[in-house]
Amino acid sequence: MHRNTLVSEIRKKQSYLCVGLDTDPEKIPPHLQGKPGATVLFNKAIIDATKDFCVSYKINTAFYEAMGVAGWEAMEETVAYIPDTHFTIADAKRGDIGNTSSQYAKAFFETIPFDAITVAPYMGEDSIRPFLEYENKWTIVLGLTSNKGAKDFELQKLGEEFLYEKVLSTVSQWGNPDNLMFVTGATQAGELANIRRIIPDNFLLVPGVGFQGGSLKEVSRYGMNDEVGILVNASRAIIFAGSGENFAEEAATIAQQYQAEMANYLVAK
Amino acid sequence: MHRNTLVSEIRKKQSYLCVGLDTDPEKIPPHLQGKPGATVLFNKAIIDATKDFCVSYKINTAFYEAMGVAGWEAMEETVAYIPDTHFTIADAKRGDIGNTSSQYAKAFFETIPFDAITVAPYMGEDSIRPFLEYENKWTIVLGLTSNKGAKDFELQKLGEEFLYEKVLSTVSQWGNPDNLMFVTGATQAGELANIRRIIPDNFLLVPGVGFQGGSLKEVSRYGMNDEVGILVNASRAIIFAGSGENFAEEAATIAQQYQAEMANYLVAK
Repeated sequence: MHRNTLVSEIRKKQSYLCVGLDTDPEKIPPHLQGKPGATVLFNKAIIDATKDFCVSYKINTAFYEAMGVAGWEAMEETVAYIPDTHFTIADAKRGDIGNTSSQYAKAFFETIPFDAITVAPYMGEDSIRPFLEYENKWTIVLGLTSNKGAKDFELQKLGEEFLYEKVLSTVSQWGNPDNLMFVTGATQAGELANIRRIIPDNFLLVPGVGFQGGSLKEVSRYGMNDEVGILVNASRAIIFAGSGENFAEEAATIAQQYQAEMANYLVAK
Repeated sequence: MHRNTLVSEIRKKQSYLCVGLDTDPEKIPPHLQGKPGATVLFNKAIIDATKDFCVSYKINTAFYEAMGVAGWEAMEETVAYIPDTHFTIADAKRGDIGNTSSQYAKAFFETIPFDAITVAPYMGEDSIRPFLEYENKWTIVLGLTSNKGAKDFELQKLGEEFLYEKVLSTVSQWGNPDNLMFVTGATQAGELANIRRIIPDNFLLVPGVGFQGGSLKEVSRYGMNDEVGILVNASRAIIFAGSGENFAEEAATIAQQYQAEMANYLVAK
C-alpha cells in the first residue's frame, strides 16, 4: 500500500486505529472454542465488526505459530479476508543475515501478502535491507518498545544518546518515509517530542495505548505530523472486550470509542 | 536435552558440528525439484548421510516460512525425523514482549519439539524470560553476529564496552550454562578470548566457520572450555556441497572433514 493511500484512508475514516489480532485460542469465547477453524471464525467476526473504525490490522505471528501448521493456515486465511482498504502488518519481529532476511521478506510480502512486517534492528543494515527492496511494502523497525525490558538495552546510553535513538537515526537513513516506519512505545510527551526530532517524517506504530486514559491524547498531540504519521494499535482491549456470544459487537463498541477520540485529534491537528 | 548429554555426545562422536538445514528450494538438486515433499526428501537424505559426523541440526525457519503452510509441514516432518541423540535448534531469531515470547516458546519447544531456539536481545529481559522457563530446553541469544551489519549496533560502544559485551554480561545473569547459549560469530583470537572472559561457561554457537581455512582452528582453540563449550555450524558448505544425484554423499564427505578436524582439536584440548 502506498503512503498516500494509507493517509487518505485515515482521513476518510477519521481513524488511525490498528486492531491487533493476537488471537489466543484460550481467550476466544467459549461458544467458539474447539470448533474447526475457531481462530478464523473469531477473526472474521472481529474484522466484520471493526473494519469501519480502523485502517489497519496487525497479526501477531506468535499466536499463530504456537498452533503450528494449523496456525499458519489460519494466518493465511485471515489475511486473505482483510479488505484491501486496510493496511496489514505481520508483527513478526524478524531479522537475520541478508540471505535469510530475504526469505522472511518472501514469506511475509509474497507467500502471505502483508503490506508490512515488524523487524528487529540488532543485526544491522544487511538484516533490514532485503525488506526495504519491495515496492509499496513497509518495514517497521523496533525503536523504543513499551515493555519493561526496554531499559535493559534500548535505554542504555551509547555516548550521548540512547541505543534506541541511535537505531532511529541510523535506520532512518536506510529507507524513507514511504517504506519505513518505527515501533515506538513511548507515551510521554517528552519522549515523543524527542522521537519526532529524530524522525520527523516516518510513520510511528504505537502499541499499548489505552483510550480515555490520557495516553492516546498525548501520543496524538506529540506523535502526529502533517501527514498524520501515526498508527495506534490496540489488541486485547478490543478483540477480547467481550467473552460471550456478542464478542464482536463489544469489540466494535471499543473500536468505535477509539475512532471517535481519534477524530477529535485529527480535527484539532 | 541436558547439557551432560550434549557434551557426552560430542565426546563420543568427537565432533561439535551443527549442520544447518537452510534448505532453499531453488538450490536443492534438480532431480528433486518439483517433487512433492522435495524439502523433506532432501533433508532426510542429508540427515541420514551426516548424522554420524555431527551432534546437532539447526533449522533456519526463514527458508520454511517462505513456503508458507507447506514449509511449516516440512519443518515439523524434518524435526520428527532427526534422531533423539541430536540437539535440534530452531534458528528463528524471535523475541517480543513477555506474553508473546511465551507463545513463541510454545511454538518451538512444544508444538514443534526443538531443543533450542535462537532469540534476539533488543527488547530485554521480559522478552527472553519465557524461553528460559522450560526445563532441558535452551535459549540461544544473539551476542556478536558474523555479518557486516554487526558494526551498526553490536559493535557500538556503550561507555567502555561494546553493546554485544553488555548483552553477554547482562543476559548471562538471567540464565545459566544449562539453559543459555550465545551466538558468537567471532573467529578472531582476540575477540574469542574476550568473549570467554565475559561468559566462561556458556556454550557458544558459532556460525560461518569454514573448515581448513584456519578459522575452525582459532575458534576451537580460543572458544573451547573444559566442557567443550562450542557448537560450530556449517550450512551451505555442507548441504549444498554437491548438486547432483550424489548430493548426500558429497555432504557426508564435507561433514566428515569437519569432524576429523574437530577430533584433533578435542584431543589437543
